[in-house]
Amino acid sequence: MLTKEVITNIEEKPKDHPNREWIELDWDELNKRIIRKTTDKGTDVAISLEEKAPLKVGDVVFEDEEKQIVIRTKKEKVYVVYPENIVQMGKAAFELGNRHTPCLISESEIVVRYDETLERLFDEVGVRYEKTERRFTEPFKYRGHQH
Amino acid sequence: MLTKEVITNIEEKPKDHPNREWIELDWDELNKRIIRKTTDKGTDVAISLEEKAPLKVGDVVFEDEEKQIVIRTKKEKVYVVYPENIVQMGKAAFELGNRHTPCLISESEIVVRYDETLERLFDEVGVRYEKTERRFTEPFKYRGHQH
Ligand SMILES: [Zn+2]
Ligand SMILES: [Zn+2]
Repeated sequence: MLTKEVITNIEEKPKDHPNREWIELDWDELNKRIIRKTTDKGTDVAISLEEKAPLKVGDVVFEDEEKQIVIRTKKEKVYVVYPENIVQMGKAAFELGNRHTPCLISESEIVVRYDETLERLFDEVGVRYEKTERRFTEPFKYRGHQH
Repeated sequence: MLTKEVITNIEEKPKDHPNREWIELDWDELNKRIIRKTTDKGTDVAISLEEKAPLKVGDVVFEDEEKQIVIRTKKEKVYVVYPENIVQMGKAAFELGNRHTPCLISESEIVVRYDETLERLFDEVGVRYEKTERRFTEPFKYRGHQH
């Protein structure tokens, strides 16, 4: 089936559906406009978005009485970094930027994909972190850089 | 004259001297081990540091009864960035890192060298900043990056 728009979002407006199917995306794929995937129940879906907004976890791309097709990201190995203060936040974020490492920054944490070589960096900054699994819920807007 | 060490620091231990001469360095030069400069009063100085610690503003590299020679940085055009919260700090620092822009991060501000192209970046992050002049007081430890 072909779908061109996001109908609603079940994270923002929770609502049950008797037959929910999931499309699991890589984090990067949230930024794509055109996606071909098979749901966890075997339905082939072609998404070709007309709106510019990136996909988010919970976006419903198809819905009728028989089925609802919803976007989510794959569970990934990540580091969750817990800055103790604003200086640690600044230094950790600067170092991640300096390595062009996509990350999600929020008030209490920074989430980055698992990459063993980051541990040295966290240790140098002196920031606490843990290795765990997460689904990234929003796209990372990567901005290029020049030298 | 040749000097191989830092004797004291007048910012850390304020003390007057009847004849103080200044060596003005670029920010980058604080990290150098070997420096040849002329003071503001015309004394030629060769610095060849044996210790690994970088130079700081206020470091006294020579002192006798007749003169005292002190390091400071040149006044430079800078942006002072004022993050309103920890998320703004993280996002601004990430973007500066992503551009490999040396900066000094403290609890209340980020200081970077003036560079008009940064204004767009600050605006995108939504962080308040002002253009002003500062002497950088400590060296920026730059860490390389790989792609
Ligand atoms: Zn590069
Ligand atoms: Zn780079």
